[in-house]
Amino acid sequence: MVKKRVQLVLQDGDLFLQTSHFDDDALRTSETSMAPFRLLAGAMHYFRIPPEYWEDRIIKCRDMGCNAIETYVAWNVHEPEPDQWTFEGFADIVRFVKLVEKHSLYMIVRVSPYICAEWDNGGMPYWLLRDRNVRLRSRHPTFQKAAKNFYNVVISKLKPFFATNGGPILAGQLENEYGCTNNDSEYLQAHYRYLRDDLGVDIPLFNGIWAEDRFLKAGKCEGTIVALNFNDGAADKFSWLEAATSSSNPRVCTEFWVGWFSAWGGHRYKPRESPETIATRFDELLSAKGHAILYLFHGGTNFGMRNGANIRADYCQFTITSYDYEAPLNEAGQITPYYAALQEVAKNHGHEPMPTPSVDVDVGSILPVPPPKSYPTIQVTSQALLLDQLQRPGYQSKVIASPYPLSMEECHQAYGYLLYRTHIPGPTPPSEGGNTTETLSINELRDRAHVFLDGSYLETLERTAGRCVAQTSNRFQVPPEGCQVDILVENQGRCNFPPFTQDFKGITENVFLGDCFVLSNWDHFPLSFSPEQLGALEWSPVGSGTVPQKNQPCFFRATWDLPTVPLQDTYIFLPQWQKGVVLVNGFNLGRYWNKGPQLSLYCPATVLVQGSNEIIIFEEEAPGSAIRFIDALEMKS
Amino acid sequence: MVKKRVQLVLQDGDLFLQTSHFDDDALRTSETSMAPFRLLAGAMHYFRIPPEYWEDRIIKCRDMGCNAIETYVAWNVHEPEPDQWTFEGFADIVRFVKLVEKHSLYMIVRVSPYICAEWDNGGMPYWLLRDRNVRLRSRHPTFQKAAKNFYNVVISKLKPFFATNGGPILAGQLENEYGCTNNDSEYLQAHYRYLRDDLGVDIPLFNGIWAEDRFLKAGKCEGTIVALNFNDGAADKFSWLEAATSSSNPRVCTEFWVGWFSAWGGHRYKPRESPETIATRFDELLSAKGHAILYLFHGGTNFGMRNGANIRADYCQFTITSYDYEAPLNEAGQITPYYAALQEVAKNHGHEPMPTPSVDVDVGSILPVPPPKSYPTIQVTSQALLLDQLQRPGYQSKVIASPYPLSMEECHQAYGYLLYRTHIPGPTPPSEGGNTTETLSINELRDRAHVFLDGSYLETLERTAGRCVAQTSNRFQVPPEGCQVDILVENQGRCNFPPFTQDFKGITENVFLGDCFVLSNWDHFPLSFSPEQLGALEWSPVGSGTVPQKNQPCFFRATWDLPTVPLQDTYIFLPQWQKGVVLVNGFNLGRYWNKGPQLSLYCPATVLVQGSNEIIIFEEEAPGSAIRFIDALEMKS
Repeated sequence: MVKKRVQLVLQDGDLFLQTSHFDDDALRTSETSMAPFRLLAGAMHYFRIPPEYWEDRIIKCRDMGCNAIETYVAWNVHEPEPDQWTFEGFADIVRFVKLVEKHSLYMIVRVSPYICAEWDNGGMPYWLLRDRNVRLRSRHPTFQKAAKNFYNVVISKLKPFFATNGGPILAGQLENEYGCTNNDSEYLQAHYRYLRDDLGVDIPLFNGIWAEDRFLKAGKCEGTIVALNFNDGAADKFSWLEAATSSSNPRVCTEFWVGWFSAWGGHRYKPRESPETIATRFDELLSAKGHAILYLFHGGTNFGMRNGANIRADYCQFTITSYDYEAPLNEAGQITPYYAALQEVAKNHGHEPMPTPSVDVDVGSILPVPPPKSYPTIQVTSQALLLDQLQRPGYQSKVIASPYPLSMEECHQAYGYLLYRTHIPGPTPPSEGGNTTETLSINELRDRAHVFLDGSYLETLERTAGRCVAQTSNRFQVPPEGCQVDILVENQGRCNFPPFTQDFKGITENVFLGDCFVLSNWDHFPLSFSPEQLGALEWSPVGSGTVPQKNQPCFFRATWDLPTVPLQDTYIFLPQWQKGVVLVNGFNLGRYWNKGPQLSLYCPATVLVQGSNEIIIFEEEAPGSAIRFIDALEMKS
Repeated sequence: MVKKRVQLVLQDGDLFLQTSHFDDDALRTSETSMAPFRLLAGAMHYFRIPPEYWEDRIIKCRDMGCNAIETYVAWNVHEPEPDQWTFEGFADIVRFVKLVEKHSLYMIVRVSPYICAEWDNGGMPYWLLRDRNVRLRSRHPTFQKAAKNFYNVVISKLKPFFATNGGPILAGQLENEYGCTNNDSEYLQAHYRYLRDDLGVDIPLFNGIWAEDRFLKAGKCEGTIVALNFNDGAADKFSWLEAATSSSNPRVCTEFWVGWFSAWGGHRYKPRESPETIATRFDELLSAKGHAILYLFHGGTNFGMRNGANIRADYCQFTITSYDYEAPLNEAGQITPYYAALQEVAKNHGHEPMPTPSVDVDVGSILPVPPPKSYPTIQVTSQALLLDQLQRPGYQSKVIASPYPLSMEECHQAYGYLLYRTHIPGPTPPSEGGNTTETLSINELRDRAHVFLDGSYLETLERTAGRCVAQTSNRFQVPPEGCQVDILVENQGRCNFPPFTQDFKGITENVFLGDCFVLSNWDHFPLSFSPEQLGALEWSPVGSGTVPQKNQPCFFRATWDLPTVPLQDTYIFLPQWQKGVVLVNGFNLGRYWNKGPQLSLYCPATVLVQGSNEIIIFEEEAPGSAIRFIDALEMKS
């Protein structure tokens, strides 16, 4: 049987496709051709897009003029617990590759232990942090062993789809922007050798950096193709690359940033750039004979509280739930003005969309995807105070007792909230200045906590820096018999970017009263939002106008009927609510927070059902009552 | 053979000695008597006093009217590395016990994994922190296993000297002020059960706390004698104790604070209290029929950089080298006004000194100890810049290379300085605002560092809080070829008090350039001040007036002749020097620092020799040339 094999090759400082037809029976290559190739890929992350929509997004990318799809592979999506592998649903990367192949597109797959990507822990599994000795992204043996295991499993899945084996995958990447923030070349080379020599990876590997001499040196790895990530100044940057690399290096932009992400805190990271500006820069890139991967063609959503964070010595920024990214396709997969602008430029440079493929729709895809719509507003009908639920089966059975506070990782909890409970011994000793002399400090708080004394709200504490001890500013008194303290700690997203690489979550060391009294004997209640925990909630009716006391974390529930199909995407808008999480039919849509900038949460139709639907809102601070469904992402500008 | 056995017993809310004469051959008790007993002990720490002076201090304690000596047992003195046990020299606790016995005194021995004591890590071995998962003073299995091993070894040494076996040791203590800062009763009880049930400890165990309801509850442990630590208000405190304990509890003050310690920073912790004040409070204690352990009768010295620290969320205070403590005997063992004042009170309450013992002087003791004296001033004659020495054998052979910075514990270094060296890749990218755009940050710095770029001093950084990232305020430029960075980090003493219980030292995570570039590939040069390292120094002559550039850490050397015996103690006074360490004939006298309050360093005659003596000073910042020898501890008031 004759098979086609394609190899992306470097020649004369540019990329070519060398196509061979290989006769397996005769064990010989029957025909070889070499053709110039200009890569124009659109990036999207399968793990951020409902699987039913993958094909829709792929088709739209092809239609914009791209000839390839690029994706990261997120290790923590596939290995949620050590050696427990998942390749189903959102994690079914093989199906994603097959869909790309079906639409005659090539693929770039960035497999790395670390992907950054504004994704929790930069894609590295949280459980690596269960051992506090580990150093992520390093030659630490624990990390290296786990990373190799990850390569073994994922490369074995993907290798049959390498272009060199007749599949769509043309190239990969080594690590991720490694030279921009790190400089252990031996680490980089060990990964390179493992992929090449041990796993037989025979496709080219890009080595993406930002255009600076230091980063080039720091991330140098023989055998890789140096590529650049930028959003502006292609001509200058490629000239720099040409001058800086001794070898003749093709002009590849592995991340042409068409937009950007945002963090909770009231405003976008940076002002949005107009479609015209992006188009002009893109034109400059293509005019400079560059190869481009649009980062992103389509961003998607940080469902399930999987967003990452950027943490520095003096601040913490937690990425919002939407990963819309101001991309050619918005969060719901709709075409934006950037799409047309970029399509036009691509076309001018000879990137015509390939013909529409056959209508042989893959099982599970929704084609065409109807646009988001507004549904009628509904009211919550039931409520369940968190602190009242902790004695119920779904919570009580999960309690972890420990003499000292455990980190979230030590509690085997990846994401979300962990409630810490203990008893403070009393009484507060009399003091000269007054009678409320106590404070509570958390060393270290990762990342945000509501503190309750005997069930009454005291204060909300926040991690304000890479390293810090969070102390209550409200002073309080402990009665002679002592009191119960509950600390509801939220992991707001593990840092996905250096230098705070080991971003343990929860409470990492201890909690102390005053300046030195260390509190022992903790019960840990992980809030998993699992069907078991949601099913165990004891609901009470919400009377008109009766909402729980402020700052009493509470579950709220509503049901609503969707009689007609096709179901359509929508955005959940909670204008009177404060901060929390939304689950629709058990699916975790992610965090909302009235401080913005994101004000509405993407709810894909794929999580809705015809007939009765259930929404559960976990509100930390103060609920509204109405739940609105609107047709767009609402962002504070 | 008939042996005498003594048991300290509680009866009618007070302490009694029950003495039995036991006939081993006949396996029967021949005679038993019960006598009231009033404990008056003087505390001193054998590990802080030259062993040759132990007997002198013990005799002086007896002569003041005490009937017992109290000491902590410092685990880290005896087990400097895992399962390597030391019971020689300063660590020869059996010899110390025998000297106490020789002078017919009783003993209280406080054996605990944790002793506080302003001693590095509260006495717990530094190597426990080699595993970052450990939680000290807790039920963490790693800690518990090591602690039990420590109990096994030390109790087997001491048990033959228990009064119940005919020796001087009347009582012990369980943990140390546990209820004042911690409340895991299961931890406390596990230790109690282990001592009682597994190791057969049959002497009473005190459980010392501060007089507060909360601490009593938090540190409750059935079977122990609740005791109090205080420096004032004995009558009220004992009344509180009587009311607060249901059982009839004797009135024991396990720490009657006669003075206090100080930290580097220009002033004493608190103003010194007069001998009259202390005497009045002591009188109140004895009038209230209290039992007292004077903390301290004699403090001694934190030789070898073994001092502890008090670290809180918002400050770090490192204990000075002198542990004079304003005690009845000063650092050099001389009688102070407190001695006479307390002796007088003791006498009034019937505590007469026992008769002078026989002159059968123990081998190795110096009796009588001559007073400290001033010796003629000398000048340093040789110097050796630290950064010039690192390629020499004593340093080069000890280098530890690692992709990421290792903590001091991970480098198997207990105390002192560790130099971190790596290469910073260049160049600094051009910036709009100017051309010096780099900073360096240390996450986390424990505790103080001098930073050098290509050998030139940049800046000194300090840990200013329990948790912090230390960042250079001086900005700098890195040339295209990069530059070498050296970071000389000093462990200023591990925290000996909660809440910063895991006080890892050195650099615990990483060092980064700008806000996120993580530097890899570190060489670690431990400065051990070992004979090997001191012997390997390459000395140059110090010309008149030629001192090295400021802020170039440098060794200085001088020799001086002591022709006549007996040699006498002295204090080394370095008025023009800044900060560093002094070694005399290879013995590490500890840190000096011109910020005070301590300005002179105790140099016992036991480290001097007749004939030629050598002094080596490691000065971090700017040397003087003269070395003065004075006859007293000089303290900024």
